Amino acid sequence: MSNIVVTLPDGSELHMEKGATVEDVAYEIGPGLGKDTVAGVVDGELVDKATSLSEDCRLVIVTDQSDEYVDVLRHSAAHVFAQALQRLHPEAKLAIGPWTDEGFYYDISGVELDSDNLEEIEDEAHDIIEEDLEIERVEKSREEAFDLYEDNPFKQDVLDTEAADEDPLSFYEQGEFVDLCKGPHVESTGEIGGFSILETSAAYWRGDEENDTLTRVYGTAFASEGELHDYLERMEEAEERDHRKLGREMDLFSIDETTGPGLPLYHPNGKTILRELSDFAGELNREAGYDEVETPHLFRTELWKKSGHYDNYVDDMFLLDVNDEEYGLKPMNCPGHATIFDQDTWSYRDLPVRYFENGKVYRKEQRGELSGLSRVWSFTIDDGHLFVRPDQIEREIRQVMDLIFEVIETFDLDVEVALATRPEKSVGSDELWEHAESQLESVLDSSGMDYDIEPGDGAFYGPKIDFGFEDALGRVWDGPTVQLDFNMPERFDLEYVTEENERERPVMIHRALYGSYERFFMVLIEHFNGKFPLWLSPEQVRILPVSDDNLGYAHRIKNELDDFRVEVEDRSWTVGRKIQQAHDDRVPYMIVVGDNEEEAGTISVRDRKEREENGVSLESFRNHLESERDEKRTEIDFLD
Amino acid sequence: MSNIVVTLPDGSELHMEKGATVEDVAYEIGPGLGKDTVAGVVDGELVDKATSLSEDCRLVIVTDQSDEYVDVLRHSAAHVFAQALQRLHPEAKLAIGPWTDEGFYYDISGVELDSDNLEEIEDEAHDIIEEDLEIERVEKSREEAFDLYEDNPFKQDVLDTEAADEDPLSFYEQGEFVDLCKGPHVESTGEIGGFSILETSAAYWRGDEENDTLTRVYGTAFASEGELHDYLERMEEAEERDHRKLGREMDLFSIDETTGPGLPLYHPNGKTILRELSDFAGELNREAGYDEVETPHLFRTELWKKSGHYDNYVDDMFLLDVNDEEYGLKPMNCPGHATIFDQDTWSYRDLPVRYFENGKVYRKEQRGELSGLSRVWSFTIDDGHLFVRPDQIEREIRQVMDLIFEVIETFDLDVEVALATRPEKSVGSDELWEHAESQLESVLDSSGMDYDIEPGDGAFYGPKIDFGFEDALGRVWDGPTVQLDFNMPERFDLEYVTEENERERPVMIHRALYGSYERFFMVLIEHFNGKFPLWLSPEQVRILPVSDDNLGYAHRIKNELDDFRVEVEDRSWTVGRKIQQAHDDRVPYMIVVGDNEEEAGTISVRDRKEREENGVSLESFRNHLESERDEKRTEIDFLD
Repeated sequence: MSNIVVTLPDGSELHMEKGATVEDVAYEIGPGLGKDTVAGVVDGELVDKATSLSEDCRLVIVTDQSDEYVDVLRHSAAHVFAQALQRLHPEAKLAIGPWTDEGFYYDISGVELDSDNLEEIEDEAHDIIEEDLEIERVEKSREEAFDLYEDNPFKQDVLDTEAADEDPLSFYEQGEFVDLCKGPHVESTGEIGGFSILETSAAYWRGDEENDTLTRVYGTAFASEGELHDYLERMEEAEERDHRKLGREMDLFSIDETTGPGLPLYHPNGKTILRELSDFAGELNREAGYDEVETPHLFRTELWKKSGHYDNYVDDMFLLDVNDEEYGLKPMNCPGHATIFDQDTWSYRDLPVRYFENGKVYRKEQRGELSGLSRVWSFTIDDGHLFVRPDQIEREIRQVMDLIFEVIETFDLDVEVALATRPEKSVGSDELWEHAESQLESVLDSSGMDYDIEPGDGAFYGPKIDFGFEDALGRVWDGPTVQLDFNMPERFDLEYVTEENERERPVMIHRALYGSYERFFMVLIEHFNGKFPLWLSPEQVRILPVSDDNLGYAHRIKNELDDFRVEVEDRSWTVGRKIQQAHDDRVPYMIVVGDNEEEAGTISVRDRKEREENGVSLESFRNHLESERDEKRTEIDFLD
Repeated sequence: MSNIVVTLPDGSELHMEKGATVEDVAYEIGPGLGKDTVAGVVDGELVDKATSLSEDCRLVIVTDQSDEYVDVLRHSAAHVFAQALQRLHPEAKLAIGPWTDEGFYYDISGVELDSDNLEEIEDEAHDIIEEDLEIERVEKSREEAFDLYEDNPFKQDVLDTEAADEDPLSFYEQGEFVDLCKGPHVESTGEIGGFSILETSAAYWRGDEENDTLTRVYGTAFASEGELHDYLERMEEAEERDHRKLGREMDLFSIDETTGPGLPLYHPNGKTILRELSDFAGELNREAGYDEVETPHLFRTELWKKSGHYDNYVDDMFLLDVNDEEYGLKPMNCPGHATIFDQDTWSYRDLPVRYFENGKVYRKEQRGELSGLSRVWSFTIDDGHLFVRPDQIEREIRQVMDLIFEVIETFDLDVEVALATRPEKSVGSDELWEHAESQLESVLDSSGMDYDIEPGDGAFYGPKIDFGFEDALGRVWDGPTVQLDFNMPERFDLEYVTEENERERPVMIHRALYGSYERFFMVLIEHFNGKFPLWLSPEQVRILPVSDDNLGYAHRIKNELDDFRVEVEDRSWTVGRKIQQAHDDRVPYMIVVGDNEEEAGTISVRDRKEREENGVSLESFRNHLESERDEKRTEIDFLD
């Protein structure tokens, strides 16, 4: 038999016989590892340890210490769910049950499940875990398989398609339950420490609306009860913080069927936050030498043909006909900025030229994929485009990165960074790419920051650095980006005159500090759970008069705080109810004023963390407010 | 014969026989007036003094002291032009030659005129004026008329259409020249004091592209040479100040064929001014209790059907199809604001609610009518909508007017004001209209401002006040507007809960302080001739080092002025050339620094009015700059 080369994570190579299994390789490395092996990752794909290796490959052995172990465990949990379901509802037909990033699901048919049923099934699943049933791989002939699935059109379909060439077929058994399955699985049901059914939704067989409707049951599983508990708490917290829910409660924005899906309307509270964000971005950009420009939303599609976007983007563009010419809402701002740059002649001394625009763009997502502010039809990018000489790339990238760090720090977000390098198909000379990539790497290295390299993941027109914002719940969201572009200057025939009086192409840099305002706003709402830092809060201070007699004093204090967003609560409520309402509205600070305060000329301050102090002088509070706001602190801290 | 009643401007009534002429009425009033009569204005229309009055009417007698006299004079000037043309080019065929607001034109055919020809014709016209030919009304039969115009298809067409029922026909003769014409005219060509041919353009007979192409010759005329001279100077000045010319020269904005007509791109200099304008508007609005909102540019047309705009505006809207639903770019912001208002429940205590948005709207003007920033496809309105109780109308209108006055004063513009009242077709009760109109009048009266009443000129949904900005050249441009609306609250079913716990409709007020940013920007460019006040200037100060040795000092000074828009002129030019360039760029202040200044630690200040002062301390200049900017002074005055 011929040999194959198996490359291990440390780069070492093992020569194995063709047809050796993952488990064989593990034993070859060492008997201890062989015994612990749960599964393997072959060329990036998680597979059963019984999988034969038929060609040279990269292999990672998965044990219960590996990151991938939880995927294997969840795959087994899907079987546990199916087993419990069949014990209680033998008439249910199983379709498919894969693991996912968050747990597993199983698509089923032939049974209606309400929440009581689901609870019973979950209890049964816990019993099966308790029973600690061994999970065993067995093989069956095609005949046996068709006999087994005589009444199950879904499994028959799988036998006729994906598994059409397999004989014998791979099955997994645990106790009385058996399922057509290529694995991998853990050794026994007892390895599952935490198991929970989450929710159900409708699905179609093979995802095709023409096919049967199925019930998709979502669940999750962990190696320990504690991890499950933490996960469920995080989910609950995430639901509490859902920006669509908070958007309604805090009157930030709405999306309306009559006005159109995916097209948010910002209410005064939401617009106040957006304006603060935009003022901050404007300040950062102006200080960094950016010139603001403004381009229309509507363009002749000629422009997109010139930029080359038309070929790739036309399906996502909102197009219209005007006087028999095709126009489109802009899906991006760069061609407009290139057009402005192109209207002037530039010397090497003028570069870098840095344009900035809060540019609203329109991209036609599928209606079904629209969701709150995270997937919309119209969003505003804090979009910057730099036109630089090749020798300026590093300095300019460094400056952009500094701006991005300032944003991340200001909002107390963590960040994930990736450098995407030259793909196979690309434009621009080797020299330009190597020069550019090494400059990006050098900037990243000197920043002292961890980053991933994603080889070949750059755009065809240049390498890029992508940032992901990590929020308070540890979730990561698309954020800022820095992208070199060797293509657009060609397409727009952009030029500058060098010191030697020759014409050269500038390099273009695309960059955004927030990414899109919509996405960033969503991240902030959920990250802060609506409890925005003082400088962002739509209402910064609410004054609560103890009785209507103190209304005059309340208004005098409001006047003293006239450069803050202050409201007087003038409804005839008890002060307790007023405090409760201010808490519900997430107002950072409350000023309570009664007869005592009015006589003493002081105020009582409460904050949304339910801390309280009496006899405060307005001046000291005002001074504090100013510094907390102007320093953009993320925590309210007058009463620390 | 039956009698008719002629109402004179003072309100008095004359009973005349039916068929009496304008001149007859003038003689009835007094023989002096009869003798001086040039023409009449009957029910608003300027007519010949020989016109018979066949029914009750309002009549103004026009003498050479009347405002309308210049129109009559210009009508005669059109005949003088035609006479001169026919003397020099007998083959030319005359079409029509009316007076206009700015002079007159005559559409002609059968002759090619270059600038030399036009000069000869102008000379000939001056001779005809010199000849002081009597202008006399004569009548001809239809037969005579057709004989006369045997070779002139245009006049034949007039005889067959407008004049089809007339026999005899009215002609005017001066010397050898005769023209089919209903008048009015002055007594003799000598009354024309100033006469000038201005330019030619192409036109179509009857304005229809299917018809013959004609040459339209524009000219103007005045009672005196001096008035003509002033007019021509004003025209030249206006051309110099043309915002399209200054827009290019000062790099403010561009409109590009590839990106699309009527869709301006704002360059950094233009955007700086727009941002200052928008910051100022934002400040005014926030101080006045407006809440900023943001609505998309794209809406389902359902919204415009709901608002009722669809029926009237659909032809001007940019429409597109998305998933088989009709969408449109918004032609106005009000329905979006009504939608936001409608998402909440409101108590009488919450009103007035005031929304504000710098809202970009899209209206599809004819391509041929697009011009610079004055006629565009996309423009941004500083758009406010108030939702008020009927008892709040007066107070709110008063506040809006105060804001408008502040804008007018800030930019040193004069203003024309008109109140437009209830038209025949309208919605809303008599009581509501009377109440609203009387509140508007009361606000206008108490402002002490002159205003016109335009009866019946209000929109069907409410009365309004329109402002026209008068610029430095005395031209008037559409500006701010305040508009009551009783209709949209109905259509959107808007409500608030009264003190008595009943549901009531609010009244909506539409208002804009600038009108459109594009139009306002154009007015400012031309009004200031590009010499913007300090606070608006894209570049506020330019530092001119006498030699490269002073560059370091120049940059230190720039750093000291870091909250101003300051540039250092670092090209190796003579200081004279640097000063000239700064003048050409209309920079308000120049700081010249040479060795003397550097040694003394002072600066030399020059301004764009070519005033100069040496040995100035940077601190005093800086203090001045701050107050000049912050007070938004319209004149630079450090060196006054």
